[in-house]
Amino acid sequence: MNEDIKQYLKAHREPQLNQLKNFLSLESISSLSEHKDDVKKTADWVADELKAAGLEHVKVMETEKHPVVYGDWLKADGKPTVLIYGHYDVQPVDPIELWETPPFEPDIRDDKIFARGASDDKGQVFMHIKVIEAILKTKGELPVNVKFCIEGEEEIGSPSLDPFVDDHHDLLKADVLLVSDTTMVERGMPSVCYGLRGLCGLQIDLKGPKGDLHSGLYGGAVQNTIHALVELLGTMHNNNGQVTVDGFYDNVRPLTKEEIATYESLSHDDKMKKQVGVKELYGEEGFSTIARIWGRPTLEINGIYGGFQGEGIKTVIPSLAHAKISCRIVPDQKPDEIAELLQKHIAEHLPVGVTAETTLFDQAKPFITPYDHPAIEAAGIALKEAYGVAPTYSRMGGSVPIVETFNTKLGLPAVLMGFGLNEENFHAPNEHFHLENFDKGMEALIDFLYELDKKL
Amino acid sequence: MNEDIKQYLKAHREPQLNQLKNFLSLESISSLSEHKDDVKKTADWVADELKAAGLEHVKVMETEKHPVVYGDWLKADGKPTVLIYGHYDVQPVDPIELWETPPFEPDIRDDKIFARGASDDKGQVFMHIKVIEAILKTKGELPVNVKFCIEGEEEIGSPSLDPFVDDHHDLLKADVLLVSDTTMVERGMPSVCYGLRGLCGLQIDLKGPKGDLHSGLYGGAVQNTIHALVELLGTMHNNNGQVTVDGFYDNVRPLTKEEIATYESLSHDDKMKKQVGVKELYGEEGFSTIARIWGRPTLEINGIYGGFQGEGIKTVIPSLAHAKISCRIVPDQKPDEIAELLQKHIAEHLPVGVTAETTLFDQAKPFITPYDHPAIEAAGIALKEAYGVAPTYSRMGGSVPIVETFNTKLGLPAVLMGFGLNEENFHAPNEHFHLENFDKGMEALIDFLYELDKKL
Repeated sequence: MNEDIKQYLKAHREPQLNQLKNFLSLESISSLSEHKDDVKKTADWVADELKAAGLEHVKVMETEKHPVVYGDWLKADGKPTVLIYGHYDVQPVDPIELWETPPFEPDIRDDKIFARGASDDKGQVFMHIKVIEAILKTKGELPVNVKFCIEGEEEIGSPSLDPFVDDHHDLLKADVLLVSDTTMVERGMPSVCYGLRGLCGLQIDLKGPKGDLHSGLYGGAVQNTIHALVELLGTMHNNNGQVTVDGFYDNVRPLTKEEIATYESLSHDDKMKKQVGVKELYGEEGFSTIARIWGRPTLEINGIYGGFQGEGIKTVIPSLAHAKISCRIVPDQKPDEIAELLQKHIAEHLPVGVTAETTLFDQAKPFITPYDHPAIEAAGIALKEAYGVAPTYSRMGGSVPIVETFNTKLGLPAVLMGFGLNEENFHAPNEHFHLENFDKGMEALIDFLYELDKKL
Repeated sequence: MNEDIKQYLKAHREPQLNQLKNFLSLESISSLSEHKDDVKKTADWVADELKAAGLEHVKVMETEKHPVVYGDWLKADGKPTVLIYGHYDVQPVDPIELWETPPFEPDIRDDKIFARGASDDKGQVFMHIKVIEAILKTKGELPVNVKFCIEGEEEIGSPSLDPFVDDHHDLLKADVLLVSDTTMVERGMPSVCYGLRGLCGLQIDLKGPKGDLHSGLYGGAVQNTIHALVELLGTMHNNNGQVTVDGFYDNVRPLTKEEIATYESLSHDDKMKKQVGVKELYGEEGFSTIARIWGRPTLEINGIYGGFQGEGIKTVIPSLAHAKISCRIVPDQKPDEIAELLQKHIAEHLPVGVTAETTLFDQAKPFITPYDHPAIEAAGIALKEAYGVAPTYSRMGGSVPIVETFNTKLGLPAVLMGFGLNEENFHAPNEHFHLENFDKGMEALIDFLYELDKKL
């Protein structure tokens, strides 16, 4: 249907790869202040490319740190609007000596392009720009309205994005968020990610005696604060890998039959055992490994400390003991509700002889775009068309804060259609991007925009 | 009976206190190399005093670090031999600014003598010397044979004492060990300590995945090493404060009815709560506080660590988690047997998905001199005579390594007849010693030697 657009891409492949090399040669490392000018130069480069592609109202918008590049094309009257998010900043390059070719001298070999940012996320941002260019040059118009919001702080945690979205509600208003900054489940298996777990972090500080005590003088007669912590933490799981905090699972949306089957088929336990170096996996009874990671909540102790930690032994009964806990939560759990349940559990299960304080840390809402949502369906159709195989509907076990930002502040459902592969060394030396996904990905993105027009 | 000896002490009290002041003014801090000469000078001072008291074969015997002072009087043919142990070294004096009078300028006020070492242990060593002097000057002979072994490394853990005893078995051979380096149960309540708990230390290192994992990518599917540690440690106690390691209590010598009654009467729970700053005490069901500390074994987690311990939260599944454990053990438990039971327990209760390593640390045998032992009885009679009240037969919850050394290497039963008080700030600023116990203590020590002759 869009053969003319795809022909345009084929015809322009060589010059586009050269342009991508120019993009990748810019040293936009957001975490290093000595690269501040490079980051700015890269923002300008993106803005120029957006203009050249035919986007309008293009601007480089300053923030506290690195600018956001905005551009739009809003002439599809009455059609839905897609907000395309991506980032033009990259990770540092150390250890530099492990790179086979220099990180900012892009090199194509084995049908892969090697450079810092090739996969995460410049390569994928570039695809979106070139897709818009191809459609506009071929058809003279887009099937939907499009807005670009390309930031320069993703690799440092997007500190300016929240205030930026707050300050530009109208500018960023859209019907759906489209992000290409995630990975495919595996090579040849295109994926639409429709769900993310949220987070609820908390610290427990227990206090027993007013100071550390000598275990010879007091041992046996005073509660040991570490014993109390162990006892308390021991009440939070049972031997079936389930969380035993009262009410914890109450609002968990059950997995559908389809999800259960898909996740089961994606669970390659032997591969994962090898990957993490364990003889056995362990988790919530009754769920496959992928279901446990994508679709089920967890309560993890991320850190524990108390008493003597030096060499050898010190016969002390410690006054203080601490644990850091985070829950990965799933729809429809809410982080503040989970925090409340945890605090209640701690109060109710506090062992004798100690007092407890809790401190709340990071919270993130879990996120799901129902996979029968028109935008997810559109992505599925487009990926199947481009790759010749039905895509995998995936979730992620972590959170992507920017998705939460756009969802919370602008109410946007998100389609995470990423073309990276897990083995592409993002955040590591020899980052690269498979050009097969550069080509097929752009085809899929074209079809997605046309499908979206039909569905939404 | 020994009124003439006691009269001698009274008559010489003033010059003796001046001599004690000289002793206390020597800066014999064994842990600080800049005081090495002071320590040596102090050893010589002790040797001179022993000679002046009438002891023979007095020598200052070099060790790897600080010398041992030896002296004896062995002319009581056919009579038992008492080995008197003590130490002439002292703790450092920091924080110096908290001393009301300088630590090495002894000052008598409120019938107490203030100086570093006044209570621990120079004051008590001095009493033994003066008792021998008083008896010899008055009677011309001692009722029993006596050996002095006064070391200079007690405050740094007596590193040379073990080899010294090994090298001088014959020199140190005796029938009973007499030590005045412990405290009375409380003021006005003289005490004979007849038992010490032993020790068995061990570290558990658990390993799960080969490296720390991101809880978003793996959380829920892989054993969390801290969870495993919490689960494992949770199997070591029940909710009655009992240790649930199989066989742990098998060799525990039951407390006698007398002990149970005595320990109960000495348990001042409200006082202890206030002292350590807790609202409730906690320990093994069915035992009083003092019974728990003196007569019952414990398993204490002295330290725990694993995962992230910095500020805030880091959503990591830790690869490693560690616990340091020590058991206080009682007669007739043996440290190596307990270590074996612990290792067996760990192997049998190891949670899925982790491996364990254990490292053994310090061990000390528990020690008891039956309180119907003639030497304990002799001490009891002597203390009652001097103080006018029946003494408390006490134990200690900690271990005194030198007692174990003399018991293991020379087979000596020990009588711990200490005259310090817990509130006398040994190891802290403003250390002092109550002169009432200086006077009564010497009377008791005189009677002890005469009673020993009758009993042993």
